[in-house]
Amino acid sequence: MDIKQGLEGVVAAATRLSLVDGEAGELVIAGFPVEEIAPRARFEEVVWLLWNGELPSRGELAAFEWRLAACRELPAATVDLLRAAAQRRASVMDALRMAAGSLSLAAGQEGVQGDPREDAILAVAAFPAIVAAYWRLLQGKEPLAPRLDLGHAENYLWLLTGEEPDPERARGLETYLNTVSDHGLNASTFTARVIVSTRSDLISAVTGAVGALKGPLHGGAPGPALDMVFEIGSADRAEPWLREALARGDRLMGFGHRVYRVRDPRADVLAAAAERFYANGGDMALYELARHVEATALRLLREHKPDRRLDTNVEFYTALLLHGLGLPTELFTPTFAVGRVAGWTAHALEQLANGRLIRPAAEYVGETGRRWVPLAERAPAVATASAA
Amino acid sequence: MDIKQGLEGVVAAATRLSLVDGEAGELVIAGFPVEEIAPRARFEEVVWLLWNGELPSRGELAAFEWRLAACRELPAATVDLLRAAAQRRASVMDALRMAAGSLSLAAGQEGVQGDPREDAILAVAAFPAIVAAYWRLLQGKEPLAPRLDLGHAENYLWLLTGEEPDPERARGLETYLNTVSDHGLNASTFTARVIVSTRSDLISAVTGAVGALKGPLHGGAPGPALDMVFEIGSADRAEPWLREALARGDRLMGFGHRVYRVRDPRADVLAAAAERFYANGGDMALYELARHVEATALRLLREHKPDRRLDTNVEFYTALLLHGLGLPTELFTPTFAVGRVAGWTAHALEQLANGRLIRPAAEYVGETGRRWVPLAERAPAVATASAA
Repeated sequence: MDIKQGLEGVVAAATRLSLVDGEAGELVIAGFPVEEIAPRARFEEVVWLLWNGELPSRGELAAFEWRLAACRELPAATVDLLRAAAQRRASVMDALRMAAGSLSLAAGQEGVQGDPREDAILAVAAFPAIVAAYWRLLQGKEPLAPRLDLGHAENYLWLLTGEEPDPERARGLETYLNTVSDHGLNASTFTARVIVSTRSDLISAVTGAVGALKGPLHGGAPGPALDMVFEIGSADRAEPWLREALARGDRLMGFGHRVYRVRDPRADVLAAAAERFYANGGDMALYELARHVEATALRLLREHKPDRRLDTNVEFYTALLLHGLGLPTELFTPTFAVGRVAGWTAHALEQLANGRLIRPAAEYVGETGRRWVPLAERAPAVATASAA
Repeated sequence: MDIKQGLEGVVAAATRLSLVDGEAGELVIAGFPVEEIAPRARFEEVVWLLWNGELPSRGELAAFEWRLAACRELPAATVDLLRAAAQRRASVMDALRMAAGSLSLAAGQEGVQGDPREDAILAVAAFPAIVAAYWRLLQGKEPLAPRLDLGHAENYLWLLTGEEPDPERARGLETYLNTVSDHGLNASTFTARVIVSTRSDLISAVTGAVGALKGPLHGGAPGPALDMVFEIGSADRAEPWLREALARGDRLMGFGHRVYRVRDPRADVLAAAAERFYANGGDMALYELARHVEATALRLLREHKPDRRLDTNVEFYTALLLHGLGLPTELFTPTFAVGRVAGWTAHALEQLANGRLIRPAAEYVGETGRRWVPLAERAPAVATASAA
């Protein structure tokens, strides 16, 4: 039997949400090249676009922004759960998954299945509030009240820091969130689609998706790429450091992607956003160092593995940009979720509209025809080596 | 492009856990025909078998039963969450999903990824405790403390009712849990595998799986089949009632399955368990009525749709058995989860051991090359029909 390991190359859905062309290095988000839309749109516009297929009009956007802002307040039970998680020092992703699941306490009424669009609004609106509240609780601080007068990205920065973000910082974050808003049937997005393929609800879908995103194989964990730049520390150390790492057989974090055979188009968008941000009062030396590390790594990778195309992926400049915006490494993946929840909800809505139950087959490779042996007649367990 | 709608027929994994032969009407659970193992094994034995590939020895079973029993106590934050859910009258499945997710507060330490086996034990042990605690809270009663001296199935009945179950009742429930413990790559099990395919944790996997199981297309929702039997009410009404339903084009609940083209082998196991239970002091008239309704429905279905094989599925006798055991309809699907969590955890462990990242492809059917239009230049939204 032909087992499709990892379902690679199996087309599991038709979608209008994003086109990932790994050979050409192109990403189209609801019709727009990522480099066309990510630096220009507000995050709320991208969410609307993904859900509706068109950019919103002025009136639609104003109403939608207000609707989202009105859902930023977390249910009391969600905050209680975050407090309990903080006492246990649970990871931010675990806390986000638990709190996302508890949003059912704000959705719907009396056990009636909620409206999928309402659940989607709730999830998108609440994710930054959850991450920020939990981060503050972990620091021993109280969560802040959301600001209804701020946009989605600005409010996230406000909830984290209690400071009104300057426009450059908000724009940098917004470009990041837009850039990672959707990316084909990655494992977390596919999880969301499988869950709602049973006609389950969107809160269940995004909760499952956060659980998938948690795993280290998913991607969206850009911390190590930044750690590498910091460890290298200065331009003259880049080449010897990278040569040693490659000689040891280490994987260079921030390079290579399962889908992209050429440069990840998101890397350029985020590099430009990082440059713009760092040039406006940021630590330009760090930016220059990162670019030097990237160029050196690409040169050495081509020298070291001429037959494989290992190009810069989204993580490298994500790390640089988010660090520049003041986010700690622990918030990189949760902030990825704050952006990707746009795509998760859009895919779930698309699946509900067009999809059918997702139920693949398995090849059974075990025994058959075993006969029951009563407990008293079973052989004792083989003793393990440890006799201590 | 060839889109695999619902991934039907796509082999997504090799497994030693269960073989579902829809053409022959056979189900093999870790080597044992379902009718061989389900009525004989304790549920703890089936869990051990699924996780380890062999039946446990006496010593292994004793230690494993003790280990599971020791994990029945829910974290305080989980009980708090259930209280908040009960105030909102959330559905039992929503409450189970939320509470399952919060088990991370008992698992692992300080944000360190838990041991997958420990997470699996925690999930299997806690599911009945969650369902029972929530059900009591919904009735305005306090959750009961788990009984360490009772087996898994017995303790579930104890936690629900506060009465020590007689052995027949416990045996009936145990047979049910064993029968539904695993069933190939159904949508919830596949969800669990996709989630851990990123190397995420098992609490995330079972939380996502509960979310998938919630949906009405999943199956495992046997309430309507029982409702039909009650509505028919007496043997002489069966044929006219069913004829009318078929003439109206209604689907008969409890018949037909996406995978089985013949009789679902689980139906026989559960019918036998139900007969045994009802014959020992249960409502034998109800049992006889159900058998009569089944026989009549099968005869009329063959008459009505001679080209389709619509046979009795697992839901029909699940409903009869669980009703006989005293479980209310609202607990049918949650109790299915109490059994299926054995398979979810086993598949997640198998995926962690052998699998790779699950990331299918999508066909993009949207536009490309759209250009950005600034907000001020966009057309106003087309007015909707409603001008009220």
